[in-house]
Amino acid sequence: MSLSKTEVNKDLLKERSRCQFDIQELTNVLDGGKRQTLRRKKMEDFVLSGDAHKDEVPDECLSIKERYENAVKKSCLYGSMLRPKLLEMRGLDSFGTPTIRRLADAYFKEISPFLLHMGMFIPTIIGQGSPEQQAEWLPKALSFQVIGTYAQTELGHGTFIRGLETTATYDPNSEEFVLHSPTLSSYKWWAGGLGKTVNHCIVVAQLYTQGKCYGVHPFIVQIRDLETHEPLPGIKVGEIGPKMGFNTADNGFLILDHYRIPRENLLMKNAQVLKKSSKHGKLAYGTMVFVRVTLVSDSAFNLAKAATIAVRYSAIRRQSEIRPGEPEPQVLDYPTQQHKLFISIATAQAMQFTANWLWATFTKVQADMISGNTDTLPELHALASCLKAVSTSDAAAYIEECRFACGGHGYMHSSRLPHIYSYVVATRTYEGDYTVLLLQTARFLVKAWEQTESGNATTPTITYLNLAVNGGTNGWDNRELKIASR
Amino acid sequence: MSLSKTEVNKDLLKERSRCQFDIQELTNVLDGGKRQTLRRKKMEDFVLSGDAHKDEVPDECLSIKERYENAVKKSCLYGSMLRPKLLEMRGLDSFGTPTIRRLADAYFKEISPFLLHMGMFIPTIIGQGSPEQQAEWLPKALSFQVIGTYAQTELGHGTFIRGLETTATYDPNSEEFVLHSPTLSSYKWWAGGLGKTVNHCIVVAQLYTQGKCYGVHPFIVQIRDLETHEPLPGIKVGEIGPKMGFNTADNGFLILDHYRIPRENLLMKNAQVLKKSSKHGKLAYGTMVFVRVTLVSDSAFNLAKAATIAVRYSAIRRQSEIRPGEPEPQVLDYPTQQHKLFISIATAQAMQFTANWLWATFTKVQADMISGNTDTLPELHALASCLKAVSTSDAAAYIEECRFACGGHGYMHSSRLPHIYSYVVATRTYEGDYTVLLLQTARFLVKAWEQTESGNATTPTITYLNLAVNGGTNGWDNRELKIASR
Repeated sequence: MSLSKTEVNKDLLKERSRCQFDIQELTNVLDGGKRQTLRRKKMEDFVLSGDAHKDEVPDECLSIKERYENAVKKSCLYGSMLRPKLLEMRGLDSFGTPTIRRLADAYFKEISPFLLHMGMFIPTIIGQGSPEQQAEWLPKALSFQVIGTYAQTELGHGTFIRGLETTATYDPNSEEFVLHSPTLSSYKWWAGGLGKTVNHCIVVAQLYTQGKCYGVHPFIVQIRDLETHEPLPGIKVGEIGPKMGFNTADNGFLILDHYRIPRENLLMKNAQVLKKSSKHGKLAYGTMVFVRVTLVSDSAFNLAKAATIAVRYSAIRRQSEIRPGEPEPQVLDYPTQQHKLFISIATAQAMQFTANWLWATFTKVQADMISGNTDTLPELHALASCLKAVSTSDAAAYIEECRFACGGHGYMHSSRLPHIYSYVVATRTYEGDYTVLLLQTARFLVKAWEQTESGNATTPTITYLNLAVNGGTNGWDNRELKIASR
Repeated sequence: MSLSKTEVNKDLLKERSRCQFDIQELTNVLDGGKRQTLRRKKMEDFVLSGDAHKDEVPDECLSIKERYENAVKKSCLYGSMLRPKLLEMRGLDSFGTPTIRRLADAYFKEISPFLLHMGMFIPTIIGQGSPEQQAEWLPKALSFQVIGTYAQTELGHGTFIRGLETTATYDPNSEEFVLHSPTLSSYKWWAGGLGKTVNHCIVVAQLYTQGKCYGVHPFIVQIRDLETHEPLPGIKVGEIGPKMGFNTADNGFLILDHYRIPRENLLMKNAQVLKKSSKHGKLAYGTMVFVRVTLVSDSAFNLAKAATIAVRYSAIRRQSEIRPGEPEPQVLDYPTQQHKLFISIATAQAMQFTANWLWATFTKVQADMISGNTDTLPELHALASCLKAVSTSDAAAYIEECRFACGGHGYMHSSRLPHIYSYVVATRTYEGDYTVLLLQTARFLVKAWEQTESGNATTPTITYLNLAVNGGTNGWDNRELKIASR
């Protein structure tokens, strides 16, 4: 039965008939223009018109093993369907557009085990590989001959990247790097797809040459045989176990035992990297900032989904008797319910417009960097960090409010809300923990305040501090467009 | 390997050696006395010394079906182990003591499908059955010949109990009640154990006799054959599907098609019930208040568990470099971490002492009611409702904070924290939704304020309003024991 033939609930029809704005206009604005809306609809029709994305048995009823098998099967179907489009993708921007990410969300329902291949392995090669490295690896990766993930976090270190223990020691005789996990706490931990799916991996390790440590660097490491898919000698790899969500992502661990890789597998955007490690440090921001930027958009999308589900439920659900003899009111009419839902709707929209602006800023900074200018990177980094922390945390909290608004029904997986929560609440932690990023933001602002006081120029988004220092605003003016200025 | 042979982590030993209070003394206080501590330890040794509670494969890896089978198997082992103790249980108080509930938590890890049999079916028979009904049903229920659950909520009605649609129409000719589900929204929905486990069920339905409705009443209904376990003719029953938690609780639906039960299956604490329905209304509070009271204690227990896990993790986890060259500090030493953990510890203890007081109040009111005095019930009802709402909601929020405090590791099921959250957050909704109970509390307080202003006596716990009305306190005095009084 297609959706168009389903009879629409009368309460929903009633609510929709009362809408006082142009739905199509708002849709276009949210998509970024009429053309983008049409493009999205076309893609959605193409991908979702068949039955391939439908599960015979809900994922939540299956064992972990069966869920994974289902996710791999769907990934293969999805990949072959989109292959022509995938092979066209080159720039980081093509991996960050919401359309493809959101389409995958509708198609998989769960996480694709290839998420980090598309979302971090390939973007890292694009962002940190030299032109030669990109020429070698991208065609293989985009055609899924090489399937990779990104292994940075270790069992003992996440936030403190300088503390990573995995070593990559250069052997000038064989022109190889020797990768090694010296301790239990140095085991790579968490990388999605590592447990079962990938045959390659970007390993972030401390680079040693001639007895000296040059800090963490990314290396491309083959970990499984391309024919048998067995781990190669010197590699121990497996799954880390079941989690609150992401249960089809086969997050894994990796233990390297004096494992040798060719010198050329050190990713180097340009040849000076080894000599000027400070420059490399800035370039390495790339993938991390990219992921944080996309997470702001993901947060907005998922909160909007949760709000949509909860609003529809609230229009249909009727409860209690306000006036004797009258029908039970829709719960949407209760102020306590509106308080939960309207804040969620407004936040989702505000977050989406912020995400659009952040994405535009990101692509601009990317262009600057390609032309050799890294001046705008620190501000982007600060903004992406702060907005990542706030949007993932707020989205998770409001999604849970939307779930509460559906009462017991929100506890059922059929409402989809438990899944949305367990997915989004993970993003609050990964790619930069909430508390750590807030502290980092505070440090950025204090530094900016000091710079402002000493008369030095600050970056564009915090010029409002100048007004505070020079104009002496004491009050808070929240009239439209006049926040903190008078 | 037994726990006693495990080497204890040095950081944990260091923290424990610095403890400045008498651990045994606090343990005794929390248990309610030295004797209770000894009794608890003895029970724990008895139940947990074997291997029966250990799972070969973690539950989270299994399919829903396999999880349920494992839970039934463990329930049978648990039941046969505790059978002598179970057969001694008679009063509601024996079902509310934390020791047995917490022991079950350690044993099952997941929910026993017999939870509602022990936690609501039997307590309802004790609380609302006549002496004859108790004599008939309790021995069968305590020996698990009769296995039951409690079906009140319907697909369309939870909060608004008066709106329940299931009917029980008295047929004077056959001296039977005819139970019927007239609409889709009248299907019984949610009862734990209903999907597969139980053969009986307490059904709450609108009682009709001679064309007149007498409001909702509880009936004991056999729904499955005692030999074949097949649903009886006129009964449709099944599971409602996977949920955020409680996935071994086989929550179910029930559809009654003009299903006949003997007149004697209407639960009646005394013979006047049918004539004086107002009195019955007060007695019917019993099970609901009982469950709410136990949930306050459950919240405290689960928050304490989460805080314990997060504190231990924080003692062992080391991260970042504060002073160059020095070892990484334990994350427990960071103020932002302490802010998360210390509030959780303090809240758990405050909640537990409140729960102890509430339980004592409950048993006192129970005794009053047995001697015919229901005057103290409204205040207990108000307190249990408010404390249920606040403690389940706060516990869920702080458990999630504890989980966040463990970073990515808190997202793994091996930390146990996702399970604790998904369990406790359900209690925020069931047995009285958070928002609804807060509104109910507000109504109680406004009414109490009006009574105080008009000079009428209020109930003991809100006599402080007298001080406000008569003494005219304007400020807020938070000195010890002087809150809102001066």
